[in-house]
Amino acid sequence: MSLGDKKRERGHDAMSSTKDIGPQILLAHGAGGELSRQLVENIFFKYFNNETLKPLADAAVLDFPGCRLAFTTDSFVVRPLFFPGGDIGKLAVCGTVNDLAVSGAKPLFLTASFIIEEGLPLSVLEQVTRSLGETCQTAGVKVVAGDTKVVEKGHGDLIFINTAGIGLIPANLDLGQHRLAPGDLVIVNGPMGNHGLAVLLERENLGLESGVTSDCAPLNEIIAKILEKVPGIKMMRDLTRGGLATAVKEIALGAGVDIWLDEPSIPVDDEVRGALGILGLEPLYMANEGKFVVFAAPEDAPMVIDIMANDSLGGQAAIIGEVTKGRGNVLLKTMLGGTQVLDLLAGDPLPRIC
Amino acid sequence: MSLGDKKRERGHDAMSSTKDIGPQILLAHGAGGELSRQLVENIFFKYFNNETLKPLADAAVLDFPGCRLAFTTDSFVVRPLFFPGGDIGKLAVCGTVNDLAVSGAKPLFLTASFIIEEGLPLSVLEQVTRSLGETCQTAGVKVVAGDTKVVEKGHGDLIFINTAGIGLIPANLDLGQHRLAPGDLVIVNGPMGNHGLAVLLERENLGLESGVTSDCAPLNEIIAKILEKVPGIKMMRDLTRGGLATAVKEIALGAGVDIWLDEPSIPVDDEVRGALGILGLEPLYMANEGKFVVFAAPEDAPMVIDIMANDSLGGQAAIIGEVTKGRGNVLLKTMLGGTQVLDLLAGDPLPRIC
Repeated sequence: MSLGDKKRERGHDAMSSTKDIGPQILLAHGAGGELSRQLVENIFFKYFNNETLKPLADAAVLDFPGCRLAFTTDSFVVRPLFFPGGDIGKLAVCGTVNDLAVSGAKPLFLTASFIIEEGLPLSVLEQVTRSLGETCQTAGVKVVAGDTKVVEKGHGDLIFINTAGIGLIPANLDLGQHRLAPGDLVIVNGPMGNHGLAVLLERENLGLESGVTSDCAPLNEIIAKILEKVPGIKMMRDLTRGGLATAVKEIALGAGVDIWLDEPSIPVDDEVRGALGILGLEPLYMANEGKFVVFAAPEDAPMVIDIMANDSLGGQAAIIGEVTKGRGNVLLKTMLGGTQVLDLLAGDPLPRIC
Repeated sequence: MSLGDKKRERGHDAMSSTKDIGPQILLAHGAGGELSRQLVENIFFKYFNNETLKPLADAAVLDFPGCRLAFTTDSFVVRPLFFPGGDIGKLAVCGTVNDLAVSGAKPLFLTASFIIEEGLPLSVLEQVTRSLGETCQTAGVKVVAGDTKVVEKGHGDLIFINTAGIGLIPANLDLGQHRLAPGDLVIVNGPMGNHGLAVLLERENLGLESGVTSDCAPLNEIIAKILEKVPGIKMMRDLTRGGLATAVKEIALGAGVDIWLDEPSIPVDDEVRGALGILGLEPLYMANEGKFVVFAAPEDAPMVIDIMANDSLGGQAAIIGEVTKGRGNVLLKTMLGGTQVLDLLAGDPLPRIC
């Protein structure tokens, strides 16, 4: 060690040079749409290359001696922390529980990791933690490990939460896009867009008043009922960032099929449609936190609808479309009788909704 | 929905009121010392109450049909992102791999979740991701799931990374503080404080020049060798936030024993001791990222030292202390022949070193 002028030059010091930085991260890279996909394919896949890591799966499927587990992670940066129908703590449980559930797993264990900005009132941390704990009880999962980091004021944003989760996949269960076949029907458990709109209205001073609340809810119980009574369902996906349209487009691309959606059949609450219309936003691209899509053979679809309709989280369940032969297109039969091609979400009309 | 003046008052809106916020989060709440412990006991344990979640364990131990798994999580907020001997990507793998390894598990699978600040050069993300991927290869683990969130410029700090990890615990392995007994010896695999000092010197313009590099490394291989040849070891712990002193104090408290440490036996590199002395910092409270402590019966200790000394990550292995009957005290026999009581880290002399 020598005392003296510290050399500030380092080849690897990203902060000491602003030259040649090339393209930068945009908010849309985190929106779950086209740019998120590019990031995954061009960077993460390049360095995390392995067969278990799949771009479109909600959770990894891992084989252990005697059991098969689903493993997933999500970070939550929603703003504001509290919104009608939920908060970041509830969201942090539902997001990870739902990723496990739509993978066919029974969610069991979560980790919870907090990145907190210096100065956060302890009362806010306690409120968020209580909500996280209560939602775990509702969902029947346990937080078994955790971590807390604190960053200086101005270097974070109140609180970010990461949850990772493990669930047990029943033997012989085989869900996935490889099982899709022409004729399969597309089913959702309720109306689209409530979560995104609820967060947006709480955050922005738009002069719009609404009674819309987030649909944020753990889906593992309703999904367990479906799997128990309709073991032949083909696959599921939860409809978070990028909304129904992006999820269905990813599935169509992954499965190498076309998927037709029937706009008049897709449930959207009137006041959500109205508010989103005023704001120029599309319900089919809005994030949900308590909605999922099921692909099932035509003979199984009525039973799926029946189970959903008799559950508090599936009151407005509907068959909204059909799988056909094709090459990854998603086609919407519109209200007006036309056909619209749906693509992955482009840009990020509504950042930080989860 | 009604158009009109948006009401800004909400009982649950933490940001709309600054009254009665009570105590706030301090940097020290994230330092792994006394305040971190209070946060865990007063808030997290209150709402995440279950028997699997233990305050002092590096990882949760989960029983599944046919296997026993360790499950852990850590978020990384180190600043700067790149420092001599490592970077946030390497750290994000080592931190979680080492938590699994000291729990006796063979680390297998990681998740990686990124919270990125808008404007981060993609080249920096790629550099971090490459390092993360390369360290996974070194450690023999796979990233099997991930997530990316982006926050607006000024609401984050370049990049935060969370990793969660799963490892397989061999049948019949029983490690933990319940196994400590008077007479057990305390062993470390090398010198203390290099990581904390390397990050500090890289971050602050202190006028100190040193060749010190972080010890950041995956410990699963050296630990596997020890477990294979010395299956009777009592417990291990990695020596990250709060350093050796805090880790040993937590263990003494948890096990209800006293632990004597012999300062002259504790390896500290000369230049680290010198630089820390100038800065008024204590090597025993500095974070390491490639150091761990082993508790072993006296008859097992020589073999542990031998295995460590023949591994590239254990060249300066040493027996540094002994367990005695007691009530949770840690007592340091100092260089000068006196006795000093060691407690948990208080405050945070060096934030964001992992």
